[in-house]
Amino acid sequence: MSTAEPGRLERFSINQMTVKQLSMPELVASCGELGITNVGLWREPVQTYGLEATAKLVRDAGLTVTTLCRGGFFTAIDPQERAEALADNRRAIDEAATLGTDTLVLVSGGLPAGSKDLHGARERIADALSELGPYAERHGVRLAIEPLHPMYASDRCVVSTLAQALDLAERFPAHQVGVTVDTYHIWWDDTAPAQIARAGAGGRIHTFQLADWTTPLPQGVLTGRGQIGDGSIDMREWQRYVEAAGYTGVIEVELFNDGLWARDGREVLAETAARFVEHTS
Amino acid sequence: MSTAEPGRLERFSINQMTVKQLSMPELVASCGELGITNVGLWREPVQTYGLEATAKLVRDAGLTVTTLCRGGFFTAIDPQERAEALADNRRAIDEAATLGTDTLVLVSGGLPAGSKDLHGARERIADALSELGPYAERHGVRLAIEPLHPMYASDRCVVSTLAQALDLAERFPAHQVGVTVDTYHIWWDDTAPAQIARAGAGGRIHTFQLADWTTPLPQGVLTGRGQIGDGSIDMREWQRYVEAAGYTGVIEVELFNDGLWARDGREVLAETAARFVEHTS
Repeated sequence: MSTAEPGRLERFSINQMTVKQLSMPELVASCGELGITNVGLWREPVQTYGLEATAKLVRDAGLTVTTLCRGGFFTAIDPQERAEALADNRRAIDEAATLGTDTLVLVSGGLPAGSKDLHGARERIADALSELGPYAERHGVRLAIEPLHPMYASDRCVVSTLAQALDLAERFPAHQVGVTVDTYHIWWDDTAPAQIARAGAGGRIHTFQLADWTTPLPQGVLTGRGQIGDGSIDMREWQRYVEAAGYTGVIEVELFNDGLWARDGREVLAETAARFVEHTS
Repeated sequence: MSTAEPGRLERFSINQMTVKQLSMPELVASCGELGITNVGLWREPVQTYGLEATAKLVRDAGLTVTTLCRGGFFTAIDPQERAEALADNRRAIDEAATLGTDTLVLVSGGLPAGSKDLHGARERIADALSELGPYAERHGVRLAIEPLHPMYASDRCVVSTLAQALDLAERFPAHQVGVTVDTYHIWWDDTAPAQIARAGAGGRIHTFQLADWTTPLPQGVLTGRGQIGDGSIDMREWQRYVEAAGYTGVIEVELFNDGLWARDGREVLAETAARFVEHTS
């Protein structure tokens, strides 16, 4: 098993989904052994282990929680569904605060069943943010709209580009709403570098995530994010863009990959840390 | 089997790939029976039936060939591969001229193996067009760069948006190089309507194609294009955009769909014509 020198991992954060086969205590222990000091968490495994228990576990281990994934799914038309989504997002903000992270990643939601109205769905996201932004601010949490690759536009996220995400975010103060920059979703977009500059100028790059683009895509296109270095994306190029835009925070690696999930989780964690060191500067 | 009234099919063209289970004579006969007067052809089935034989068959049947699919795959770095691609594209232009169509659709090609340089690949497309544009003009053929959905950026087409396609096309005269507007590839893009206006103003909408967006996407994401009306795309909205931009040509339906290919081809052809009438104006 290759391991990275600890000094080079200061800016590395492992998103828990990358090694979801590890339980929360296994994840925390493995991070300790490998010199990893930052983790991005997901709500479901946090709930499985318990919110307060997770907060204590990571705090006692000296880990920094860089993000909580994820809030969002704001595009319902039905009033009851909308009210439930808002309530669930307030809980997500509470959980982020309890875990000690300042960033809640938002996946905004797809088209409601039968709807073909992308514009309307995007406007409903703005409506939700106008309620959730001030609530998040009161809890010391920033919302980070994540544009998802356009292949998810109908069923997961009608926000497909950084420009669209910023058009939404800029209606609110930057300490309430910013964006997630994830290489997997934007690497194909020749306008993304300019949008990263726009986001940086506004103080709205709330997190920066890496995943590589590999093909063929699997059925359903959810679980084919490539290990860093295995695909088509020049990670250093995107790192340069965010850093030129003023981003100095940690860099999270978030992979959804059936092949990685089938392997030993600690081995995948060590490999991911080593790939981070190899492909970033 | 539902059939559409013939008068409403004047602007309809069936792209042959939609009903690839039909042989060339079956396709031509079925079009005659259903009152369909326009077809888009593909090079492989044309070669299977024979170029001159196909040209005679469609001419004798009174069919108009609206496009030939496809040229392209211009992104190789190796000089020998590049020379072969150019030679093959000259043959495609010759074939288009023989078939009597004025439009050759281009799928530009993905990243060469091991390359992460999208910009360089796009520049090599421009290099190829500078050689092929004048050749096409001499044969009465226009090249129509087709931006493919960003999910194909690495392996099929580094031209992912209408803006990128127009950035390339506009380096050449419009009667040499324009674009293909296909709903399947651009429906998620909120900047596409403005790009359609740009394309129309420059006389560069060389063909307009329809396919619907349905999920889940199949493994490899090539054969999941939805039947018109089955998915998330408002066809009339996109028809309005191209018509407001001055496009008055035929509208081609091009579906790659395992489910449709498994059915009786003539039945799928009739259904597609009926859906065209139902979902366009």
